[in-house]
Amino acid sequence: MTTPPEPLTDHGLFDAVVNLCKRRGFVFPSAEIYGGIRSTYDYGPLGAQMLRNVREAWWRAMIQERDDVVPIDAAILTNPKVWEASGHLATFTDPLVDCRNCKERWRADQIDGACPNCGSTDLTEARPFNLMFKTFVGPVEEDASVAYLRPETAQGMFVNFLNVVTSMRRKPPFGIAQIGRAFRNEITPGNFVFRTREFEMMEMEFFVPPADSPRWLQYWCEERLAWYQRYGIASEKLRLRPHDTEELSHYSSGTTDVEFLFPWGWGELEGIANRTDYDLSAHEEHSGTTLEYFDQATGERYVPHVVEPAAGATRTMMAFLLAAYDEDEIGGERRTVLRLHPRIAPYQVAVLPLSKKEALTPLARDVLHRLQRYLMCEYDETQSIGRRYRRQDEIGTPYCVTVDFESLVDEQVTVRERDSTEQTRLPIDDVVHHLLERLDL
Amino acid sequence: MTTPPEPLTDHGLFDAVVNLCKRRGFVFPSAEIYGGIRSTYDYGPLGAQMLRNVREAWWRAMIQERDDVVPIDAAILTNPKVWEASGHLATFTDPLVDCRNCKERWRADQIDGACPNCGSTDLTEARPFNLMFKTFVGPVEEDASVAYLRPETAQGMFVNFLNVVTSMRRKPPFGIAQIGRAFRNEITPGNFVFRTREFEMMEMEFFVPPADSPRWLQYWCEERLAWYQRYGIASEKLRLRPHDTEELSHYSSGTTDVEFLFPWGWGELEGIANRTDYDLSAHEEHSGTTLEYFDQATGERYVPHVVEPAAGATRTMMAFLLAAYDEDEIGGERRTVLRLHPRIAPYQVAVLPLSKKEALTPLARDVLHRLQRYLMCEYDETQSIGRRYRRQDEIGTPYCVTVDFESLVDEQVTVRERDSTEQTRLPIDDVVHHLLERLDL
Repeated sequence: MTTPPEPLTDHGLFDAVVNLCKRRGFVFPSAEIYGGIRSTYDYGPLGAQMLRNVREAWWRAMIQERDDVVPIDAAILTNPKVWEASGHLATFTDPLVDCRNCKERWRADQIDGACPNCGSTDLTEARPFNLMFKTFVGPVEEDASVAYLRPETAQGMFVNFLNVVTSMRRKPPFGIAQIGRAFRNEITPGNFVFRTREFEMMEMEFFVPPADSPRWLQYWCEERLAWYQRYGIASEKLRLRPHDTEELSHYSSGTTDVEFLFPWGWGELEGIANRTDYDLSAHEEHSGTTLEYFDQATGERYVPHVVEPAAGATRTMMAFLLAAYDEDEIGGERRTVLRLHPRIAPYQVAVLPLSKKEALTPLARDVLHRLQRYLMCEYDETQSIGRRYRRQDEIGTPYCVTVDFESLVDEQVTVRERDSTEQTRLPIDDVVHHLLERLDL
Repeated sequence: MTTPPEPLTDHGLFDAVVNLCKRRGFVFPSAEIYGGIRSTYDYGPLGAQMLRNVREAWWRAMIQERDDVVPIDAAILTNPKVWEASGHLATFTDPLVDCRNCKERWRADQIDGACPNCGSTDLTEARPFNLMFKTFVGPVEEDASVAYLRPETAQGMFVNFLNVVTSMRRKPPFGIAQIGRAFRNEITPGNFVFRTREFEMMEMEFFVPPADSPRWLQYWCEERLAWYQRYGIASEKLRLRPHDTEELSHYSSGTTDVEFLFPWGWGELEGIANRTDYDLSAHEEHSGTTLEYFDQATGERYVPHVVEPAAGATRTMMAFLLAAYDEDEIGGERRTVLRLHPRIAPYQVAVLPLSKKEALTPLARDVLHRLQRYLMCEYDETQSIGRRYRRQDEIGTPYCVTVDFESLVDEQVTVRERDSTEQTRLPIDDVVHHLLERLDL
């Protein structure tokens, strides 16, 4: 019944997905009625649901299905000494130059000796510009009240290391994980939600005995690559890319990126780094608190090394959308379909009464309520059933349940599957079970 | 088997819960190794899980189980014109005075004519101090690049109103909901996580035809009160309190708080406000964009009125902990028990092999893996079984599953219930089903 999709050009794919995101309520420019604010986005109803599903899928794999990782949820605005110790205050910078003529400011490594605005070559020396957003806590704007919006969630795990070890009675190897917003005052954000100043991270710090960090780095590279495949990205669109020595962050002895083949080329979804004992040792030094682990069994005492898989939730969502986007033909009619994994799709089920006639409403809503207990459902009763199927295909809903006039008599409904468009007639009492089984929920 | 608990004094209750939170990993002072930062907290493993459960319970009631509310997820740093239009730039202030002698700054309504620091009465006139945190976006610190950390999530719903109506084909009455961090530069935060500068809100804006807003206000008061009861707070610890006229916010024509009886008295968990057309009209005026809804069926055109239930996630978590805390006696031994609702408790199940002996490990881990597919589980194999039960009681885990040497022979395990401490012997194959049924999951 379905014909193979025509391949989309990569540029066409990007435009198609960005357009779909806006039109169907995945992503809106932030405060669009005020002209937005550059490279800032609000997630609409479908995007908010999908982001939640991305978080949930990560939480499930990284925390729920394991017994060696625990979560935390740390403050965005914390003690600024954390950023002094982590090295962010000193080294988390981009080199900027000022044009002496027109006073514009540019990233030194992105211009060619002359101001892109006025053409002047009268530029200052490059100076480091810190990428952390700064604010003041309390009623007085003075140095003592400066605070920064966290540029990564990782430090929350390091400064809470001792508290977690003690309260949760943990010993290495074990991990602390966190999902949350982070902020970087990027000079050149862009590529839709790929690089934004405010973004959401899913990070885990895995604390291990020092000698074990290389093999744990290997382990987490494989685990994380498999996670993207598990949720529907084909393996040929994914790769692991180890960093060159000169590319490494100041804290890393080895980093491998999980990359996705974006329409503009390979781009990072996640970095998996061997942060060694860089962070814990730095916090030891700056706080004066011992952050060693004492192994009672072996009598060993050591500062654990840390392997960190750090993923971007919003760019992961974008990769899922790009990987899922497809166009094909059904019975001679062209359709757009998002072949999203059922756990990632915004809605798992749409309940569609065949017509708006009142006779169908009570039964259709009864079916809806049964399903809502377990699943995110859409209820849609306007326009032709074919058009409503297309609409659900376009937002990736894996199943539609149609209630028709026959349902009033035989207490059965039609379940339609998104990818195959196959329809199955089922007793209403079996629908919940039927769907939960197929949705792997 | 259980004896009635002795009543705790309220002060004792507060101390007991705060102590438990620190000791068992619910809440830590933020960046404690650096001496923290006043009234800022990091949520430890159990707090992070519990906060997630609070969010999920809200999402389930407000979005998943309804078909008239959709979520969004808006940026924390958005266009500052939003705060000009909303009135926050002009009116979201506290009155502050400076001491001319020692230069300290105080909230005018909280001091008594003299500086609490040096006793001087040489104070400035009170001036309004804006409670929004300010930062700069981009490389230059100038007025044109100012941005504010959102002091509420609500405005994200108002500025996206049109985009949601269009992309989701919605008509009033319908709601837009959001969970997220907000920030207020409070001069006097306090009472543990009750009032903090960074906090998490769960807000929903319900758009209705203007004439219908009073009855929707009533509806949402009842719904929201019932939600707290559904998740385990006794009705005598909850009340609805309508605001006096002089207490109303600048945008509200009527507000009712859901209050909880905290150890220090009644305190707000949630405000339910009739915001009228204040916000949409203000955004119409400031953005020049029409934010009317046109009802094709009736030909009516109107700016919807808005009823807003706005809850605090972190203070809700605190209320759940206070309401659940109990001490009783089991077989002559005193225990602490958190009688948390199973959907709110950090872990739903603990899997406990009777001993650490290797013979039990494979079976215990098999039981663990079966349960982890559906539930947040803890695995604990150290110390006596009685002590481990106490530990689970103290953090509110509703069920423990014990694997013993007999289990290797009869393929059965013991399920122990937290509140009654009743134990049931069950075939391993039935455990998942047995627990899912009892946990209402």
